[in-house]
Amino acid sequence: MTGVRRGRRAGGVDTRGAILAAARQEFAAHGYDRASVRGIARAAGVDPSLVHHYFDGGKEQVFLAAMELPVDPATAVPALVAGPHDGLGERLVRFMLSVWGDPRSRTPFLALLRSATTSEAGALLLRQFVTRALLARIAATLDLPDRELRVEAAAAQLVGLALLRYVVRVEPLASASDDEVVALVAPTVQRYLSP
Amino acid sequence: MTGVRRGRRAGGVDTRGAILAAARQEFAAHGYDRASVRGIARAAGVDPSLVHHYFDGGKEQVFLAAMELPVDPATAVPALVAGPHDGLGERLVRFMLSVWGDPRSRTPFLALLRSATTSEAGALLLRQFVTRALLARIAATLDLPDRELRVEAAAAQLVGLALLRYVVRVEPLASASDDEVVALVAPTVQRYLSP
Repeated sequence: MTGVRRGRRAGGVDTRGAILAAARQEFAAHGYDRASVRGIARAAGVDPSLVHHYFDGGKEQVFLAAMELPVDPATAVPALVAGPHDGLGERLVRFMLSVWGDPRSRTPFLALLRSATTSEAGALLLRQFVTRALLARIAATLDLPDRELRVEAAAAQLVGLALLRYVVRVEPLASASDDEVVALVAPTVQRYLSP
Repeated sequence: MTGVRRGRRAGGVDTRGAILAAARQEFAAHGYDRASVRGIARAAGVDPSLVHHYFDGGKEQVFLAAMELPVDPATAVPALVAGPHDGLGERLVRFMLSVWGDPRSRTPFLALLRSATTSEAGALLLRQFVTRALLARIAATLDLPDRELRVEAAAAQLVGLALLRYVVRVEPLASASDDEVVALVAPTVQRYLSP
C-alpha cells in the first residue's frame, strides 16, 4: 500500500510536469483551438487518458494549469452572470480588480498579455482562449443584438483599466480605491451589456 | 560654401543619430521626467544647444523622435479638444482608430506598451510620458470634478480597445467598421469627459 502510494506520487509529479511542458509547447505552436489533449499527450509521451486523469475537464484545465492561471472561467463566469442583471457591470469590475489587484494572480495574466503584444502566436493564443473561455460564455447569457461586440467593448474597458491601473500605474487611477473605480467604470460595463 | 554645407550635413546625420541613441538610453535609465536635454547632450558628447537645434521643442520632441512616435501630442491634443465638446468622445475614438489602424503608426506605440508590460523602467517611461503629453493636456481643458480620473477611465477604454481590436484581434471587434466601433464606444468616452 505504501509502495503503491509512493509509486503513484513519484510518477505523478513527473507525468504531470511532462504534460504541462508539452502543453505549453503545443499551445504556443498551434494556438488554443488547434491544440488537443491527444496532441499534448503524444508530445508528452503519455496516453491521453492520463491527461484527463490529471486535468479533469480536458483542454481548458490543461491550459489554465500550463499558464498557471489562478482563475477557472468555467466556474467564475457562471457565478458572475448568475446574479441580478443590474449588478452585472459592478460584479465584472470588482472581479477584474480582485484578480489584477493581487500580484500573484496578476502575473500570469500579464504574461499572457505580454506574449500577445510580442508575437502573432501569443496573440492567437490569447485571442482564442479569451474568446472561448470568457467572451463567448458571457455573451451566451445575454439576449441583445450585437452581444459579442458589446461584450468585447466591455472587455476592452476592463483590460485597459487593468493595464493603466496596475501595470502602467497612472495617477490618480492607480491609487484610487476599488469603490471609486467601481463607481466610475461599472456603469459603462453595465450599459454595454444592457439593451 | 559647399564645404560648409557638406560638413554640416555629414555632421548632422551623425550628431542627430548620436543624440537619439543617447536619448533612448537616458529615457530608459531615468524615465521621462528625470531625463533632461542636458543629460542627453552629455551622454551624446554634444552641447545642449545642438539638441535644441535638431529637436525644436526640447525633451518631448527628442522623446518622440527617439521612440519613432508618429504623432506629436503637443499639436494633436489641442486640435482634438478644440472642436465642440459634444463631439469630443467621437474625435478621440476616431483619432485612436486612425493611429492604431495603420501598422506603421501602431508599431512604435505597441513597442512602448510592450516595454511597459515587461519592465518597471518601461512602465515608468510610459506612465510619465502618457501623463504629461496626453492625459494632463486633455484634463486641463475640462472643468469637471475628478477630471484626471475621468480622463484616465476614457484612456483605459481607448487603450483596451486598441489592444483587443488591433493586437489580440478578437472577433467581431477586429473586423467591425470604424463607424460601428465609434457608435459603440464614443458615447462612453463622451460620458467620462462630461458632467
